[in-house]
Amino acid sequence: MEAKRKGWWDTEIIDVKPNQIVISGYHIQELMGRVSYGEMLYLMIMGKLPQETAGKLIDAVLVAACDQGVISPAITTTCMAATCGVTFNSAVASGMNLLGKVHGGAIEDAMEVFYDIVNRSEKEGKSIKEIAIDVAKKFKETKKFMPGYGHPVHKEDPRTTRLWKMAELAVKKGEISGKYVEAAQSIYDAMKELSGKHLTINVDASAAAILCELGIPSGVATGFICLSRGLGLVAHAYEEIKFGKRMKAPMPPDLLNENMTYSGPELRELPIERKDLP
Amino acid sequence: MEAKRKGWWDTEIIDVKPNQIVISGYHIQELMGRVSYGEMLYLMIMGKLPQETAGKLIDAVLVAACDQGVISPAITTTCMAATCGVTFNSAVASGMNLLGKVHGGAIEDAMEVFYDIVNRSEKEGKSIKEIAIDVAKKFKETKKFMPGYGHPVHKEDPRTTRLWKMAELAVKKGEISGKYVEAAQSIYDAMKELSGKHLTINVDASAAAILCELGIPSGVATGFICLSRGLGLVAHAYEEIKFGKRMKAPMPPDLLNENMTYSGPELRELPIERKDLP
Amino acid sequence: MEAKRKGWWDTEIIDVKPNQIVISGYHIQELMGRVSYGEMLYLMIMGKLPQETAGKLIDAVLVAACDQGVISPAITTTCMAATCGVTFNSAVASGMNLLGKVHGGAIEDAMEVFYDIVNRSEKEGKSIKEIAIDVAKKFKETKKFMPGYGHPVHKEDPRTTRLWKMAELAVKKGEISGKYVEAAQSIYDAMKELSGKHLTINVDASAAAILCELGIPSGVATGFICLSRGLGLVAHAYEEIKFGKRMKAPMPPDLLNENMTYSGPELRELPIERKDLP
Amino acid sequence: MEAKRKGWWDTEIIDVKPNQIVISGYHIQELMGRVSYGEMLYLMIMGKLPQETAGKLIDAVLVAACDQGVISPAITTTCMAATCGVTFNSAVASGMNLLGKVHGGAIEDAMEVFYDIVNRSEKEGKSIKEIAIDVAKKFKETKKFMPGYGHPVHKEDPRTTRLWKMAELAVKKGEISGKYVEAAQSIYDAMKELSGKHLTINVDASAAAILCELGIPSGVATGFICLSRGLGLVAHAYEEIKFGKRMKAPMPPDLLNENMTYSGPELRELPIERKDLP
Repeated sequence: MEAKRKGWWDTEIIDVKPNQIVISGYHIQELMGRVSYGEMLYLMIMGKLPQETAGKLIDAVLVAACDQGVISPAITTTCMAATCGVTFNSAVASGMNLLGKVHGGAIEDAMEVFYDIVNRSEKEGKSIKEIAIDVAKKFKETKKFMPGYGHPVHKEDPRTTRLWKMAELAVKKGEISGKYVEAAQSIYDAMKELSGKHLTINVDASAAAILCELGIPSGVATGFICLSRGLGLVAHAYEEIKFGKRMKAPMPPDLLNENMTYSGPELRELPIERKDLP
Repeated sequence: MEAKRKGWWDTEIIDVKPNQIVISGYHIQELMGRVSYGEMLYLMIMGKLPQETAGKLIDAVLVAACDQGVISPAITTTCMAATCGVTFNSAVASGMNLLGKVHGGAIEDAMEVFYDIVNRSEKEGKSIKEIAIDVAKKFKETKKFMPGYGHPVHKEDPRTTRLWKMAELAVKKGEISGKYVEAAQSIYDAMKELSGKHLTINVDASAAAILCELGIPSGVATGFICLSRGLGLVAHAYEEIKFGKRMKAPMPPDLLNENMTYSGPELRELPIERKDLP
Repeated sequence: MEAKRKGWWDTEIIDVKPNQIVISGYHIQELMGRVSYGEMLYLMIMGKLPQETAGKLIDAVLVAACDQGVISPAITTTCMAATCGVTFNSAVASGMNLLGKVHGGAIEDAMEVFYDIVNRSEKEGKSIKEIAIDVAKKFKETKKFMPGYGHPVHKEDPRTTRLWKMAELAVKKGEISGKYVEAAQSIYDAMKELSGKHLTINVDASAAAILCELGIPSGVATGFICLSRGLGLVAHAYEEIKFGKRMKAPMPPDLLNENMTYSGPELRELPIERKDLP
Repeated sequence: MEAKRKGWWDTEIIDVKPNQIVISGYHIQELMGRVSYGEMLYLMIMGKLPQETAGKLIDAVLVAACDQGVISPAITTTCMAATCGVTFNSAVASGMNLLGKVHGGAIEDAMEVFYDIVNRSEKEGKSIKEIAIDVAKKFKETKKFMPGYGHPVHKEDPRTTRLWKMAELAVKKGEISGKYVEAAQSIYDAMKELSGKHLTINVDASAAAILCELGIPSGVATGFICLSRGLGLVAHAYEEIKFGKRMKAPMPPDLLNENMTYSGPELRELPIERKDLP
């Protein structure tokens, strides 16, 4: 169902007139130097300025997911693109184009889980822990992957630890409710109870809980990942350009040869009627 | 000439080990909540933390270039992409892919002009104003376009006015030299003197001068534009998704029909030898 | 579930050795001039050469979906990108990035419908028409959109008419079964019966039926659209470059101003505690 | 200098009216099944149908450059993108976005060299060989890289051998002049004479010579590479999806760890004034 708009390109975000650029009701020159990058993002999405804490928490989330090194196909792609003779922006965009459902989407999925838990807790009059146990069970029964839990490298994710500390402080000050952090931690407990396994609460889950605390819609969460990982993409693109290699392959030549195996059909002759063509 | 690296994917930016993510020597959890987005960008590019002012000026630059509305082909592309059934990140990357030499590159070109002016001023022992006049003359003689000057809408760019004020304050505090701001303003004066015309110092030129003041290399400047305009791309992508239109065309159907004119060959018959094919 | 591969970059498609490039078992120099573009695509996907008809039908499908003019956000994006100072390939890729589920994905969805109909017809021992009626009813009941039917401009799609004729000939020669074309036509009949409305069988549905006849998997169908529309993207990118406009907006300036309306918050003052910041 | 156009989206390529799609003057249904993919590309770019040979040569060029395996960063990127949860078209576009000046642009540069040689030969009344020697000398003196010569793997490029044979036949039939092929071969001879080294005439040079023979403008040449390599991108994207890996990194984990080295600053403490922040 399409919403009505005034003009074909109507927007609630920006109003440009001669000598005047207004973002969500504020003159841009008044915002510059007075709102942080994270606060500006909040304003442009939510249509209002955040409380001070929110800006700080958003900046922390944006710093948190900035880079993974070359474990990240997005970072690798940008590195390779930067060596192929495209413009700088295209090198960055190439990598960003890989932050899809599997690579950048866990945060959105995790937000939906946490929003659902707190919602149900309020509607059904049950505790967040009870609902979390119910949700974890359903994921287990349907063999669904719980977004934001488990990590190939980190048993404890240092970014999660830090975000929990910042959240704790904000709860104490009454700036956020803490319910979504509780939901995230309850899911961890429930899964450990059910499976006996420790599954690292990774940065997707903790960042998701923080964005829920701030009322950010889950539908825009991948945008936060784009801008966060964007830091790494810009830095790695620039580093590759400095290194000066041309057309960087994914592996050094000696390792690549062994790993570029072929398992297709044996060498064969073209059918005679084609082979006779000039 | 390619620089030597330890491993094939060697980097100076990030070091990942179990339970440990180190960015340019700092534990990520120590940076979170303590450096702004702009400071993190500086750290990842320059390999060191900026002074407080630098972070503030970078955040101001990133806020400044966030959006132009649909005058920007990048914004328009992201809006359309968001209606075509791609993942959120791809909608953002589609627009970013348009921030090329013409759309996002003026800041890099302007930085090169300003770095050159201050460099020459120091080497040749002439004032910045003298060198600026010389540079402006050469651009005029060779009919080259001066990057960062002139604007189709704004006679005075409010973002430039604000950046100059912030720079003035920073010069007073001794945090930046002010030489690059002087270069940018001297180019304006020189072009006015030469042509008699007022050419708005637009945000590309003023942002360029600020980044020069901070010692940012011109080669990474487009990355700042990607992350700045990235704010607008994320916000507009999300807004389109909320509006719910499918496959948004660039113009409303009634206006599009008139403007989608055809000026190619008249309707014609296929050559007979092809037409006879079944 | 991940399949086993010999090397990390193992492939069934290509084997490169010194002085030798083998595609799916054939020396590339033997294929050149002897297989068409469409046949090469078939070979690389299916691992075997197609019958002569298949190649011809694929080329017809690739020609069919080459362009829609600027109704297509993909074409528009490439046109705009070509004016923004990016490399030629990036202008083409920018548009291709918009051929997502809504813009380029109907063919895949339609193939799944047709494969399902013929499958069920064989398993359940019912006629294709019977199954098609059942499928159309279910789509109607669940208010699902039937992919490949209906068109904003064409009451009869000339590309479908042509594909049906080519298919008819191929059925007569015993080269294809004709079952999937029957399925596509039966869906049309069933929907007309159910709703009383004529819904154009558009090129997505007819191309989908043809690809089903050739045994192409639905999962790669969007790739055919990418390469087909790729023709238009390349041609339009080049045309824009010839025209020479810089940073083309979606609308001419006079029309854009009226349509670039703002419906966000009224102009407002920054909160006093921020406004006081220097 | 911008050319005049009727409407804002005026084009010479396509005219769409109800029930009618006209490409460069021809009804699309008349073209389908009667022109090959390569001929359609020629028509859309040149505004006229090619001679039979031209179509065949273009298809041969498009087949020739279809794939390089994972030596190609474009192929690798598409493979990785296909594992990251983006739509199929975005996986293909991600790789295409890497076919820039260094990766896909040699053909355009080579065409400019060959067009220049034949042009000068005609204007200056000298033989193609003489001009080629002059051109090769200038490249050597200015240490410029000659586009299309040399190959890391192939001493003889089998695609070049095949294209030369097809060209020879076409010259005999009087369908092409053979001047650009002569130019390409003369550059090889001249460079061998000057340096004593054998530099493989690779597919970029031979394909470039063929496109020159057909009068294709050099400015659109990269578009041919996009559509040619597009075959490989589609095939590899589909193969990765079948393999089913998630978030494929450029190297297997055991090799990646060793090669993901860090050469940045040592681990260090945050400055005290920041460290004290909560």
